[in-house]
Amino acid sequence: MTKRVAIIGAGPSGLAQLRAFQSARQKGAEIPEIVCFEKQSDWGGLWNYTWRTGLDEHGEPVHCSMYRYLWSNGPKEGLEFADYTFEEHFGKPIASYPPRAVLWDYIKGRVERAGVRDWIRFKTPVRRVEYQEDSGQFRVVSHDLVNDRENDELFDHVIVASGHFSVPNVPYFEGFEHFNGRVLHAHDFRDAREFKDKNILIIGTSYSAEDIGSQCWKYGCKSMTVSHRTAPMGFDWPDNWQEVPLLERVDRNTAYFKDGTAKEIDAIILCTGYQHVFPFLEDRIKLRTANRLAVCDLYKGVVWADNPKLFYLGMQDQWYTFNMFDAQAWYVRDIILDRIDVPQDADARRADADARIAAEDAVADDYGAIEYQGNYVRELIAETDYPSFDVDASNKAFFEWKKHKKAGIMTFRDNSYVSPMTGTRAPKHHTDWVHALDDSLESYLQTDMTTAAE
Amino acid sequence: MTKRVAIIGAGPSGLAQLRAFQSARQKGAEIPEIVCFEKQSDWGGLWNYTWRTGLDEHGEPVHCSMYRYLWSNGPKEGLEFADYTFEEHFGKPIASYPPRAVLWDYIKGRVERAGVRDWIRFKTPVRRVEYQEDSGQFRVVSHDLVNDRENDELFDHVIVASGHFSVPNVPYFEGFEHFNGRVLHAHDFRDAREFKDKNILIIGTSYSAEDIGSQCWKYGCKSMTVSHRTAPMGFDWPDNWQEVPLLERVDRNTAYFKDGTAKEIDAIILCTGYQHVFPFLEDRIKLRTANRLAVCDLYKGVVWADNPKLFYLGMQDQWYTFNMFDAQAWYVRDIILDRIDVPQDADARRADADARIAAEDAVADDYGAIEYQGNYVRELIAETDYPSFDVDASNKAFFEWKKHKKAGIMTFRDNSYVSPMTGTRAPKHHTDWVHALDDSLESYLQTDMTTAAE
Repeated sequence: MTKRVAIIGAGPSGLAQLRAFQSARQKGAEIPEIVCFEKQSDWGGLWNYTWRTGLDEHGEPVHCSMYRYLWSNGPKEGLEFADYTFEEHFGKPIASYPPRAVLWDYIKGRVERAGVRDWIRFKTPVRRVEYQEDSGQFRVVSHDLVNDRENDELFDHVIVASGHFSVPNVPYFEGFEHFNGRVLHAHDFRDAREFKDKNILIIGTSYSAEDIGSQCWKYGCKSMTVSHRTAPMGFDWPDNWQEVPLLERVDRNTAYFKDGTAKEIDAIILCTGYQHVFPFLEDRIKLRTANRLAVCDLYKGVVWADNPKLFYLGMQDQWYTFNMFDAQAWYVRDIILDRIDVPQDADARRADADARIAAEDAVADDYGAIEYQGNYVRELIAETDYPSFDVDASNKAFFEWKKHKKAGIMTFRDNSYVSPMTGTRAPKHHTDWVHALDDSLESYLQTDMTTAAE
Repeated sequence: MTKRVAIIGAGPSGLAQLRAFQSARQKGAEIPEIVCFEKQSDWGGLWNYTWRTGLDEHGEPVHCSMYRYLWSNGPKEGLEFADYTFEEHFGKPIASYPPRAVLWDYIKGRVERAGVRDWIRFKTPVRRVEYQEDSGQFRVVSHDLVNDRENDELFDHVIVASGHFSVPNVPYFEGFEHFNGRVLHAHDFRDAREFKDKNILIIGTSYSAEDIGSQCWKYGCKSMTVSHRTAPMGFDWPDNWQEVPLLERVDRNTAYFKDGTAKEIDAIILCTGYQHVFPFLEDRIKLRTANRLAVCDLYKGVVWADNPKLFYLGMQDQWYTFNMFDAQAWYVRDIILDRIDVPQDADARRADADARIAAEDAVADDYGAIEYQGNYVRELIAETDYPSFDVDASNKAFFEWKKHKKAGIMTFRDNSYVSPMTGTRAPKHHTDWVHALDDSLESYLQTDMTTAAE
């Protein structure tokens, strides 16, 4: 086999793709030459924490959107790899809401065992991808940052796995140019202790708002005000936390809201989501989508309808994460290995993408959305040798999670769930989340602790 | 004339280039088609202030490195346009250290009068520039952010005027990943009031350190600690300001220095300079240089030695600024208009670049450096119709400025200088800089004020 495959990004999606090919090779298949381009100096994508914000030491936009003390905001039982369980990695059952360092360790464990690290060119952002009609190949220009030299190469396939929680969506509100404090997007949030004793305004109501707000509260902010465009989150918040209508404007340190109320604030955190941005892709192969479960122009959610040599991984909004990326990566692998046929007719591919969008549009609520995405995962894994798992059990973990959040937004992480892979219920963590100030792997894995380490 | 010229950037250098061509046309010359690509939505480059940091609303790196309350840190008499004086623009003499908004207004005034705004494609970053041997032209791929569409075009000349004070140089120090406060580069500094009552650590001793430190002090920081690698700045600082050796490491909120001392700090501002970064240029036309007065590989400081169809403006470290960019832009214009010959032999062009570097290396001190760069400006303007001016008078303004800084780092901006263009001594400003908290254009231009407006 002389095919060359370029994978852009060594985060959870890109690593799933490496593992998928390695798994096929392990079972005796001949696989193409794989080159994975990674901008960062290590693997793990968003899970590879950095203190940096803005531009990194090479002038590249910082990929990481995570922050200190981040714990999974969903149960690990919803994201477990079917071919590499938490219990296998850690040698024992662990609690359900691991901090970032623990999840990063888990992600790395599988690919370390697979021995695929040398398929990755680290510190090598892709500058340009163009499809060449004459050769039927993709030109990929990448930049070796260490030697400051470009490479200009041809590939038969390109798999875009660069993520979509890295480029912030940053709206303007009147008065920002004169606000006398820090205005930042969640992407640049790093340490909640910076905001101790401060009055914080958050704009937004999705996961970032909920989690960064909770963190600032946990680490001692003076007050939390969360401004919503359409509806409040409606959880049972602590006393010094209020939800208010949309921000209208700020005047120096005063924020004015649509309902006529005002509040003195010290900092503004924009939890206003992320954009799908691919500045390195030429126009005709560039995905343009909102953050949703069904992504336009992608056959089976992964194949670029207009050019089925090009693939996108993990571009969907996500209830399912790691094991959905696996389902997609195994599926894409099998297309490249000629084990799965893609319709030759572009209209047929587009019809598939359109049907997925219509089906998502018909979904009634979050529970329906979880089942919708669970069905998608089930659909893909049925066509490959990715280990089958009990998707209904995963869905159930998500359903329980949502109820636990409703019951207590500061206590939901103290619950345990059953692994759909092993059938084991997770042990309870040694410390309630609200009192667990140390988010290190070492602290988390201690089973005999009864109080926070810090 | 059917030549097409691409200018990358509509900051002071790019605008000087537009004005240079417009000036030639005004005098009857036939000029090429000019397309100026500008990433931002308005002109002025760094002088176009934004509250944004990190990535902008389109996911592009924010260009602006300026901040609220920034006043020129050198006398305006050193940067005046020879063809458009401050007095002409404002209709009266103004004081010597204008705030940012006043200088932005001045920069814009000349190009508004020249009527060149429609030569610029705003919100259009350049994605890729490649030289094509066969056509002898440059392929320029740009991205129209408003319509989210690329343009792929050919140009006979490319003039890179994208600046080099926009991509931060961000070093790591041990413990940054656990520091419990904000770590930022000067590039992301916006409002000194964020740091009121805080203990601030600055790393670096150049202009950013001096000026951001002075601002934080002026707006009420609790203490200022400035850490240097080689030598302290040595100005007569206020009582709550100390200079210390290089930072060794931080441990949570404690900073440890090379001399064994330590200090509790709340925030760290890295005033560690900027990088020359051009991710949109292919390897063989990419400038790689440190920040210095003589830049390698540039004949006459502007012509790419290996391919004289390519030019760089303003890539030097700068005592001279706006009028040096003018000198360069007029010179480049006259090469393109075939009024000035460039040596046909690449070795001759490289020899010129090398000789400039050797000459800079022989310069003894800052005074020599000012004269060195003054001589360079004089050399270029002698070859074009850019209005000649008294470079010695400019040098003198710089010399005085340095002495005034030495005499009082918080009072030097209260001095006045003589314009080398008009011979007029600037009036004294209505308020001492240390008491002038309002940096608006309106406040600055009031001549009858005796106290700060705020």
